Formats: sequence, C-alpha cells, structure tokens
Amino acid sequence: MAIKIYGVPFSTCTARVVTVLNEKGVDYELVFVNLPNGEHKQPPFLELNPFGQIPVLEDGDLRLFETRAITKYLVYKYKDQGTDLVGIDDPKKVALVNVWAEVEAQHFNGAVAEVVEELLIKPRVLRLPPDEAVVEKHAAKLESVLDVYEERLSKSKYLAGDFFSLADLHHIPYLHTLLRTPKAALVTGRPHVLKWWEDISSRPAWVKTAEGMKFWDAPPPSA
Amino acid sequence: MAIKIYGVPFSTCTARVVTVLNEKGVDYELVFVNLPNGEHKQPPFLELNPFGQIPVLEDGDLRLFETRAITKYLVYKYKDQGTDLVGIDDPKKVALVNVWAEVEAQHFNGAVAEVVEELLIKPRVLRLPPDEAVVEKHAAKLESVLDVYEERLSKSKYLAGDFFSLADLHHIPYLHTLLRTPKAALVTGRPHVLKWWEDISSRPAWVKTAEGMKFWDAPPPSA
Repeated sequence: MAIKIYGVPFSTCTARVVTVLNEKGVDYELVFVNLPNGEHKQPPFLELNPFGQIPVLEDGDLRLFETRAITKYLVYKYKDQGTDLVGIDDPKKVALVNVWAEVEAQHFNGAVAEVVEELLIKPRVLRLPPDEAVVEKHAAKLESVLDVYEERLSKSKYLAGDFFSLADLHHIPYLHTLLRTPKAALVTGRPHVLKWWEDISSRPAWVKTAEGMKFWDAPPPSA
Repeated sequence: MAIKIYGVPFSTCTARVVTVLNEKGVDYELVFVNLPNGEHKQPPFLELNPFGQIPVLEDGDLRLFETRAITKYLVYKYKDQGTDLVGIDDPKKVALVNVWAEVEAQHFNGAVAEVVEELLIKPRVLRLPPDEAVVEKHAAKLESVLDVYEERLSKSKYLAGDFFSLADLHHIPYLHTLLRTPKAALVTGRPHVLKWWEDISSRPAWVKTAEGMKFWDAPPPSA
C-alpha cells in the first residue's frame, strides 16, 4: 500500500515532505485537500490532524501530522534507500542535523513565513495589500538569522556539516518562495547563503518538487 | 568526563534538559551563565551558540545548542538506562512522540512563552507591567491548543500514547511557570489536562529539577 500524503503541491510544508520522498525515491499518492473550501478545518480532516493543517501522512494504520515529524519518520523508515539525510550511523552527525533542523523550526521558519505571507500569499491568493510594518519586523529578524547562516556556511558546506541533510532540505520551500518576493536580497545579498541555495535547489529531488510550485512563479492576479 | 550544561537552573529551557538527565540518571555539571550581565550575548558564549541562548551541552568535543536537539541526543546516547522517553524499539511510537513534540514546539511553546513573559518575567525580573493585549492574544491561542490536548488526553493517558515521553516532558517547565500566573485556569480548568499535569509533575525527575525553579514561587518584588 502506497504512502498517502494529504496536502497540496504548492504548499511549502507539503513540499518539504514530498522532497524527502523524492530524495528517498519513494512512490506516494498525493491526496488533494481543498484549502479554498476550508476542507482542512472540517471534521473529516480534523480526524487526521486536530490542528487543521496540511500535510498529513497515512502509512497503513499510522497517521502523522506536523511536517518535521513526518520527514523524520520517512528518513528512518527508508534509511536503506536514497539519500542519507541525517548521517544515520553517526550519533554526533544526527545530533548536529537536529540542532540545525531546530534552528530552522525555531528561528528561520516563523520569520520567513510572515514575510512570504505578506509579500506573496496576500497579493497572490488573498488579494490584499501587504502590511509593511509586519514585513519590516520579520525581515529584520530574518536578517539576523541569515547573518548566522552566512558565518556558518563560510566554514561548513552545509548547515550540519559536510553533507546535505534534512536541516538544509527543510529550508528549501520557503527560500523558493522568499526569492519570489521583493525581499529576495536577503538571500542573494549573502554570498555563502546564495552559494548554498544554488547547491541545494539544484538537487533533482527538489527540481521535481518545484514543478508543483509553479503557482508562485506567475505574476499576481492584479498585475 | 561529565556532560556540561551551560544554563541557569530556573530557566525553562535549561530545566527541560536537566529533567531528561534526571530521568536518565545521568550526572552532569551545570555551568552557570550570567544572564543579567549579558554573558550569553558576548563572544565566548557566542562561540557555543551563535544565537546567544541557553542551554548549551558540551560532551567531550561535541557542542550542541537548541533544547529539543539536546534532549533528543541525550535520549539516544543513554538509551540503555533510565526512562525510555521515545519508545525506542518501535518506529511508530517514536513517530508519534515526534508528532506531539512538534506540537509542543510549534503550537504550545510560542503562546505560553508570551503569557509567562508578560505575567511572570516582566513583573518578577524586569519590574515592568504586563501588556494585557499581548497576554489576551496569546492566552486565546493557548486556549485553542489546550482544547486539543483536553480531547487527546480524554482518550490517551499521555500525549503520544500510553507512556510518558519526551513530548510530555517538554511541556513541564512552562506549565510549572504558567501555573504561577493569573492564567493558571488554562490548565486547572481542563480536567484531563489537569490530571495529566498532576501525573507528569509528580515524577521524581521533575521534582528534583523543580528545586532549582523555586525562584518563581516567591511573590513579585513589588508585592
């Protein structure tokens, strides 16, 4: 029985999970969730995730929500195939991957999500103007986080060390959308961050995932 | 060589790590970080954690930051002693622990941290009045998160299933401080959440950690 992923291909969180599946070479079924109709906030879906968010993974009788828990499950379930995304045989490597995955979750994600919400989702999907004060507040936070990354990536090819890991992968979908906003220079203005981005975004697993995210390439509907 | 933890005993994040060490029966050395002097924002400490936050773990030549990465490292390093905090031999149990640990990190932590900052840290440490608008905004978010917990804990003894896990443990320090604010009813007003709290907070490992958190029991300096 194939793994089912409940989500939508242009969602950053769905894209994280799909990219892991692509890195592992695992077939899956994507079950489309109708976000505009609020399907994710209604009872059948709330049985899958009481917080009403995509994605959800279904693997036989196991149902998991929270993107970063799903990706870890897949990394260990398919540890013998595809890319080793955690340095699985070395507890110190695993620990450093966890450190930088937590940095993504605790420092990067909240700030980038707010910037992308204001500069991409509001104009493109909700047809609302961005709140510039919110943009500037969270762009400033992102500056300080990416300054740490710039320093780290000047000494280390990837965030957790000398190998591409889940910590890098978790950043890709939001960086992809951030680069489609007027705040792209947060990435392109930092040489080591930019080099890292060009590396991790050229991986075939991401190129395949990105086909589902072309939605964000089009100009906004009002343009 | 003993594990070193850089932190302070009354910090909720330090307390998470210390409680795991207590559950595992592991000796450690607590290296006090002088927060009022800003030691954590200055160069020697920034070498340990570029984000300038406690706690940091040092185990021989390995240095880790981010609380939830540290606790996972300890759970696996000491898998053969003390409490099994992840259901280590069952990938499905591990996956569900990761789901509910992510819920703590993504849904619970941000909201409770804001409420505790306003109602405990500002009056007790910073001698500032709380911002009531911030309190109410984040208390409302916490209401909706704890409503999910109340439902979950009506069917499951612990968050990830029938055993005490890292997902429960990560909640303890902030619940301890939340119960010392005027918003304690968020916990005491939900019967299953309250019963869960009474269970997890009576564990000897936490009782030992809580001795270091007596700072929060005293009345505020202005009272």
